[in-house]
Amino acid sequence: MSESSSSRGVHLGANQYGKAENRVVRVVRDTARHEVRDLTVSTSLRGDFAAAHTTGDQADVLPTDTQKNTAFAFAKEKGIGAIEDYALTLADHFLEATPAATGARIEVLEHTWARLEVDGAGHDHAFARAGSDVRTTVVNVEGRGEERVAQVLSGISDLVVMKTTGSAFRGFLKDRYTTLPETDDRILATSLVVRWRHDPAAVAAAGVAWDASYAEVRRVMLEAFATTHSEALQQTLYAMGEAAIAARDEVVEVRFSAPNKHHFLVDLAPFGLENPGEVFIAADRPYGLIEASVLRDGAPDPGAAWHAVPGFC
Amino acid sequence: MSESSSSRGVHLGANQYGKAENRVVRVVRDTARHEVRDLTVSTSLRGDFAAAHTTGDQADVLPTDTQKNTAFAFAKEKGIGAIEDYALTLADHFLEATPAATGARIEVLEHTWARLEVDGAGHDHAFARAGSDVRTTVVNVEGRGEERVAQVLSGISDLVVMKTTGSAFRGFLKDRYTTLPETDDRILATSLVVRWRHDPAAVAAAGVAWDASYAEVRRVMLEAFATTHSEALQQTLYAMGEAAIAARDEVVEVRFSAPNKHHFLVDLAPFGLENPGEVFIAADRPYGLIEASVLRDGAPDPGAAWHAVPGFC
Amino acid sequence: MSESSSSRGVHLGANQYGKAENRVVRVVRDTARHEVRDLTVSTSLRGDFAAAHTTGDQADVLPTDTQKNTAFAFAKEKGIGAIEDYALTLADHFLEATPAATGARIEVLEHTWARLEVDGAGHDHAFARAGSDVRTTVVNVEGRGEERVAQVLSGISDLVVMKTTGSAFRGFLKDRYTTLPETDDRILATSLVVRWRHDPAAVAAAGVAWDASYAEVRRVMLEAFATTHSEALQQTLYAMGEAAIAARDEVVEVRFSAPNKHHFLVDLAPFGLENPGEVFIAADRPYGLIEASVLRDGAPDPGAAWHAVPGFC
Amino acid sequence: MSESSSSRGVHLGANQYGKAENRVVRVVRDTARHEVRDLTVSTSLRGDFAAAHTTGDQADVLPTDTQKNTAFAFAKEKGIGAIEDYALTLADHFLEATPAATGARIEVLEHTWARLEVDGAGHDHAFARAGSDVRTTVVNVEGRGEERVAQVLSGISDLVVMKTTGSAFRGFLKDRYTTLPETDDRILATSLVVRWRHDPAAVAAAGVAWDASYAEVRRVMLEAFATTHSEALQQTLYAMGEAAIAARDEVVEVRFSAPNKHHFLVDLAPFGLENPGEVFIAADRPYGLIEASVLRDGAPDPGAAWHAVPGFC
Repeated sequence: MSESSSSRGVHLGANQYGKAENRVVRVVRDTARHEVRDLTVSTSLRGDFAAAHTTGDQADVLPTDTQKNTAFAFAKEKGIGAIEDYALTLADHFLEATPAATGARIEVLEHTWARLEVDGAGHDHAFARAGSDVRTTVVNVEGRGEERVAQVLSGISDLVVMKTTGSAFRGFLKDRYTTLPETDDRILATSLVVRWRHDPAAVAAAGVAWDASYAEVRRVMLEAFATTHSEALQQTLYAMGEAAIAARDEVVEVRFSAPNKHHFLVDLAPFGLENPGEVFIAADRPYGLIEASVLRDGAPDPGAAWHAVPGFC
Repeated sequence: MSESSSSRGVHLGANQYGKAENRVVRVVRDTARHEVRDLTVSTSLRGDFAAAHTTGDQADVLPTDTQKNTAFAFAKEKGIGAIEDYALTLADHFLEATPAATGARIEVLEHTWARLEVDGAGHDHAFARAGSDVRTTVVNVEGRGEERVAQVLSGISDLVVMKTTGSAFRGFLKDRYTTLPETDDRILATSLVVRWRHDPAAVAAAGVAWDASYAEVRRVMLEAFATTHSEALQQTLYAMGEAAIAARDEVVEVRFSAPNKHHFLVDLAPFGLENPGEVFIAADRPYGLIEASVLRDGAPDPGAAWHAVPGFC
Repeated sequence: MSESSSSRGVHLGANQYGKAENRVVRVVRDTARHEVRDLTVSTSLRGDFAAAHTTGDQADVLPTDTQKNTAFAFAKEKGIGAIEDYALTLADHFLEATPAATGARIEVLEHTWARLEVDGAGHDHAFARAGSDVRTTVVNVEGRGEERVAQVLSGISDLVVMKTTGSAFRGFLKDRYTTLPETDDRILATSLVVRWRHDPAAVAAAGVAWDASYAEVRRVMLEAFATTHSEALQQTLYAMGEAAIAARDEVVEVRFSAPNKHHFLVDLAPFGLENPGEVFIAADRPYGLIEASVLRDGAPDPGAAWHAVPGFC
Repeated sequence: MSESSSSRGVHLGANQYGKAENRVVRVVRDTARHEVRDLTVSTSLRGDFAAAHTTGDQADVLPTDTQKNTAFAFAKEKGIGAIEDYALTLADHFLEATPAATGARIEVLEHTWARLEVDGAGHDHAFARAGSDVRTTVVNVEGRGEERVAQVLSGISDLVVMKTTGSAFRGFLKDRYTTLPETDDRILATSLVVRWRHDPAAVAAAGVAWDASYAEVRRVMLEAFATTHSEALQQTLYAMGEAAIAARDEVVEVRFSAPNKHHFLVDLAPFGLENPGEVFIAADRPYGLIEASVLRDGAPDPGAAWHAVPGFC
């Protein structure tokens, strides 16, 4: 967070600029069996850019248009493997290209595609969008050379999950505005945004097997969601975070932003009908919102890892 | 389309009213292995409701709130099998309950859920949202008893598909505003809304095996998308419609609303890079929009089938 | 609605194609006091395009890319006055440029801007978005020369209005699923989509003073909304349509699509508080949906006026 | 940020919970001339809630349902004046009701309504939504009694502004991926999210005249936007922040999140047309994204003011 010297009683505080939501689609067509990487890429730089703000002098500013060009050029020049690697490559490049920058933040969403089935086999070059959830990464690199620190978050957004039983909510604090009855059987549903932080030492050393790590974290978290008898959404999230940290040595922190998507039991008594947990109305607003983090004991300091990541306390 | 008698030089024209987007969630929990039907239900009535408009007299109007109650009550009272059957049951009921109504229109979206995998098996009561596309139906029933005609559309919305090759666009009409180069290799991508109409005779007779029919129509259309070398999105859609009609006797018409989601080849020449169909930018707006219908020869008249269905010419 | 000759037991039905949502921004800067026209333009053609569908032959097809180019070029070449005139000019041009077309449909949304106030006066070239509602038009032209018929709809979308009293709902039909209590004082709120149709004879003859007509229709409809004691949303809409038709000779039909945005009185009794129409929760879904049309007695046949206009029965 | 004691090698980190997006509508109807306050209210608590996460024990947890009830009850019991005061009242109440809480965060959006004009005067109880921008506040209270610190942000979201000239972008850093030409005349458009922080001492002492302060900050920022010749969006934002701080003693910091909504000059040369800054295409994605803050010299520490505020670096 750079602060310029004062003028006229005010000064510049934290600032960041970049190009958001570049829709980069890379087709790998070295053989007849094509592969697709479909990304939304946002890049940004922070550092000593006070002149651009106070006098309009852009001499130190690598334009957002150039950042965009680079995101597309690198899709060819460097290729796109795991989104974490692609983001790290972009971050390092921008720090090199922009001397005034002290940090680079790259956010990538990956939209996954599945091969269409034809005669029982996946087609070579025809695809359908797979699932509604999105794989994500946020990479923050600060410093160059010996002083370089790379913080990498991986994550999943829009992961919509539901349990139709095995969820309670009772024993809570009450005051004069409390009307909610206790329950030991309700629907628990949420649309998760989850991100997990990697040990920078692991990133810097041998690197992380991003795709394998992602798959395993996803799997164990969903298993924990399914198998934890839930006394509250908070408890379920904690179990999921604990499972991720237990599964992968490089994961040191997990953060959740979880709307409690209420499913209210419909009162069918006026129509002479019972409703033992069978008919619900899915409500839009308001919704509970649970934000929580789980840390490995002794986790390293996050540094810039959570820089400008919305949706978490 | 009823028209009231004139007063003050104006009169009522076509009209319809109902409750839109009831979020009905039905859990079937007769055994420990739960099933979920997750629906968005919109109901509406049309008929001789002129008094409600011209004088505010509601004596003939079954309130939209009652329509909502019924959608939820029937989820228990009648259960929810195929969405087409649930919609037909609601339509017939509303015509019976509302003497002034001449037609009932029920639209249902089904949001699908897949069991979470735990230890290699699907969990009994934990689910994740499956896919981003939505199964749909629009049912229009007009008349009662002997005169009853039930028109049933089934469909899929938000079906996002892409071909990374096997798509051309050339030989088109040109004028002084034409700048588009011809191409014999481009990305073809769309987010389909497709609906197909069933022969009312088939619906009235033995009924349709809705789930099996839906699965087969979906499968053959996706196969046609994959395997048709595309000279234009129009031609691809026609092939898909033709396949659906060929596959299922009860299907007599297919309509498509298909945005051409442009993927533009990025010019990497300024950076000394070639781009032989590898790096694209996915554009948002504008987009091509293709609307088309394919009919079985001798298809019966659609009657009210397409009543108030948006997104089709 | 053209139908191709049959092949393989199926044939082409209704079809239409074009470029949707061109974001055309035109700055008029002949003097230092700039004007802005900010439009979303969708163009489409229909006619004898069967070859494009059945064989992929594009010889008759003016590409959607050319349609896009023309929308932008005409913003300079012809200028942009009232959106209705701009749309008519585009429609006639496309019919001329595309011999196979039998009809052209142009839809335009206008996003309005207001000058920023500086020292009590409107600034020359700085603007803020004005309001959340949008002025619209849908133009359909069929035929050329003597046989040309131009149907013009004008309209407003996203017109959010509310009455905090002066609205009742009572005396309605009841059945065993009815639980709604009658009320003679509720909030009435809606987000209107309204479109009105002009007499083609008026359009063809002297033309219509589109801006003045739009302003007056808007004004009298809002006055009718405010001053009509509402027995139901239906009745309010009818009064609004009647006012528009009474005010302007060229208006022959008005159609509404009106979600009843429910505001539910909150039960504050558990907290020892009364709530005489003071505290409401604004609900999202479900919502009532009222669609209705009002016609001038003796209104000419709509022809293609409502071709592919969603949101109306 | 509370951290629980460790168990099984992990521990709880930062956490927060509450009810999001309560749609509170308050009608003041003491006279025939009604007033409307239309709010979206999100409340949340943070503190020592580890047991809820690690064991599911809810004894310290005031349910989000109770938070919702309170937001509605207070609309009657306390009334709703300026949203900042309403939020402060809720925050203090929740800290009192929930001993385990160390902080309360209340976010309120205000949707404004304007009276409909009838016969040249504003109607008593009929309204239209006024403008597309939204007034906001985020209040964070930590501590009770002597130790209470209240941090108040006020703000505006979705403030869409545009300059059609008086904006340049030139003299920027270039590298091998730079293709953007310099320009001294372009459209500058953005959809601002801006928030400003108040001196807690001013809040604690006499209080702030919130409505007057909001109106003046809004006015001087828009004037600065209009009258600053822009060398970059960064410079324009800085001028706006500086103007706000100069205008109001209680304002100590201003933060902006500003998408650069690109308007690209359309190349009309292929059609034999010039385009001297007249015809533009408004692009959706990607967009530049500028985040910046301006501080009064000697501004007090923000403490919890920016806790969980998304969209700012």
